[in-house]
Amino acid sequence: MYNFVFQNTTKIYFGENQLNHLGEELKQYGSRVLLTYGGGSIKKIGLYDKIVEQLKAAGLTIFELSGIEPNPRHTTVNKGAEICKKEKIDVLLAVGGGSTIDCTKAIAAAAFYDGDSWDLVTYKAPVTHALPLLSVLTLSATGSEMDAGGVISNMDTNEKYGLMHPLLQPKVSFLDPTVTYSVNAFQTASGSADILSHIFDLFYFTASPKMDMIDRIMEDVIKTVVHYAPIAIKEPENYEARANLMWASSWALNDFLSTGSFQAATCHAMEHELSAFYDITHGLGLAILTPRWMEYILDESTAPQFKKFGVNIFDVDSSLSNIDGAKQAISCLSNFFFKTLGLSSTLTEIGIDDTNFKVMAEKACGGGSLEGFTTLTPKDVENIFHMCL
Amino acid sequence: MYNFVFQNTTKIYFGENQLNHLGEELKQYGSRVLLTYGGGSIKKIGLYDKIVEQLKAAGLTIFELSGIEPNPRHTTVNKGAEICKKEKIDVLLAVGGGSTIDCTKAIAAAAFYDGDSWDLVTYKAPVTHALPLLSVLTLSATGSEMDAGGVISNMDTNEKYGLMHPLLQPKVSFLDPTVTYSVNAFQTASGSADILSHIFDLFYFTASPKMDMIDRIMEDVIKTVVHYAPIAIKEPENYEARANLMWASSWALNDFLSTGSFQAATCHAMEHELSAFYDITHGLGLAILTPRWMEYILDESTAPQFKKFGVNIFDVDSSLSNIDGAKQAISCLSNFFFKTLGLSSTLTEIGIDDTNFKVMAEKACGGGSLEGFTTLTPKDVENIFHMCL
Repeated sequence: MYNFVFQNTTKIYFGENQLNHLGEELKQYGSRVLLTYGGGSIKKIGLYDKIVEQLKAAGLTIFELSGIEPNPRHTTVNKGAEICKKEKIDVLLAVGGGSTIDCTKAIAAAAFYDGDSWDLVTYKAPVTHALPLLSVLTLSATGSEMDAGGVISNMDTNEKYGLMHPLLQPKVSFLDPTVTYSVNAFQTASGSADILSHIFDLFYFTASPKMDMIDRIMEDVIKTVVHYAPIAIKEPENYEARANLMWASSWALNDFLSTGSFQAATCHAMEHELSAFYDITHGLGLAILTPRWMEYILDESTAPQFKKFGVNIFDVDSSLSNIDGAKQAISCLSNFFFKTLGLSSTLTEIGIDDTNFKVMAEKACGGGSLEGFTTLTPKDVENIFHMCL
Repeated sequence: MYNFVFQNTTKIYFGENQLNHLGEELKQYGSRVLLTYGGGSIKKIGLYDKIVEQLKAAGLTIFELSGIEPNPRHTTVNKGAEICKKEKIDVLLAVGGGSTIDCTKAIAAAAFYDGDSWDLVTYKAPVTHALPLLSVLTLSATGSEMDAGGVISNMDTNEKYGLMHPLLQPKVSFLDPTVTYSVNAFQTASGSADILSHIFDLFYFTASPKMDMIDRIMEDVIKTVVHYAPIAIKEPENYEARANLMWASSWALNDFLSTGSFQAATCHAMEHELSAFYDITHGLGLAILTPRWMEYILDESTAPQFKKFGVNIFDVDSSLSNIDGAKQAISCLSNFFFKTLGLSSTLTEIGIDDTNFKVMAEKACGGGSLEGFTTLTPKDVENIFHMCL
């Protein structure tokens, strides 16, 4: 295993009605709040009113930025930063899923930068300061509620990059599972695929040495999602299911599961090209890619980990050979994504053809190759995209 | 499950040679450091020299408090607080196991209190301020390196109580598994029993509802300790074993495993009487008590959890009845503590007789009864002590 540094300072309020603490937490950071959200579903479910009531009761002055996109744009970040500067915002409150929280993180940094926020996302300019940020999570998926990163898209250039900085770690996040009761089957499935993919892609299917305890815990989080995602789809108001998915989303990507290993992110790099070019839902892209990637890189070196995954998660017969066990594991995962969770299984189904595969593959490899469980060349990535048709 | 608030701000440096960051971290908190440690084993293993070198290189002024006891006394806390006041200490550095870190936490608070530190431990006076505290861990056991609590003894009154306050959370802890290579078989076994007992006693064997994901993760931390403790005893310089035990110790008691449930602490309450009266090693006391406590409270209501533990951890036959499965689980745990780890199995063996059982039982129940998986009266506690003879 590798040496590591671990710290995660976010304070989590978890459970029904914990939002009652929102006002008291926010006002520790100032009086002028920028409330950020997406397409307005928070109004439909009554969450907006509840939050505004809390903020008013705490004597806070509210400003708003709505319409944050599912793959948030740098132009929206610029808009948010403008409001922060003009209105002398003290603290940001993101209400939404990963996209809203990611965008708000970038706004937090861009509020102290005079140029285009894309400079920060591409690390042309360093993050030097950031406004404090709190979040109210409405979708169990990205883990942005308890980490220091965000992903921002530039649709002019078909680019999507991650911005990471310790200053972007949310101070406080509110996780109320009942808030996710209204999340539909598709979003629940995509979010669950995203949680799983963080584990698969970043720490679990890697060539890195691992700490045994962490490897076991990864499998627990995987089992939790595999068990509860179908329940949450069938019974949207099942508290146990929503709560387990919510806490799993935070722990899949809050740095705990990477302790002792290095992070790969092969499927994420490939998926970022899909959503940068076609604006698709991140978790869906990951679900389509992951089993094909596993199939493509399957050989004697990768098979033992895939087989172990199948045996421990899907009860694949442990007496099978590594290759046969791995094949069954891949098939079980495909069934889980495309039958149990009901996600689309091909790029064709969601309207994507091979037009941009070559350029996407090159961009995914960043001018070189893609490191991970195995190293992929642009040609390999292109082949994997083709397998997804 | 219950609502909860989770936050753990400690920064962890994990791995060999991470101590190289000690100076840079310490000097963020000031220039006058009180270095605290126990009986001097840190000098034998060369750790003391390494630390002093780091501190000098960082230009820090070093003061020392040595001789912190295995069950640290409030009188030692008073001594440390005196030094802090007299020498205008800026920051504390605890180098040791849980006892040293616990004692240093109490010193951190007592440095701002004019009376006897026992007033803070007994909550007669509130903790209002605390000096910042960093730690270098030398024994995998109590989890004090990543939590906000400490346990202090008053040998005049045979009392041992826990002091908890968010201000006592270590700012930074250094976990270098190689530092524990010299920990002997008895201390490795006792420390491992302590880690296990935190999980058993506080969150795993309880009547509380739990979050399923957390219940799974508890079992993995248990499995990790059951797997690696015997390896660390046989091969003291096995890095994997020492590293897994070290990270398990921190996560067994850093508030993550209690998320969603309430904490019981029956065996801890009973053991605190043993070590308050007889100054024994905490983990050893817990190992002797736990299987007897399980046996004493075994009935149709407690059996399913004990059996599940046996099935999942020790491969007990799942087709057994709850009661028979539970009995086998208890027997497996006894074997693990007393044969595999080689710990003494009775109080008689460590020189304790029934002289004080009655008064200890009454004190353990604090004038009432002891809440937990089942409620115990003083008579029940006395009976359990007798089973340990």
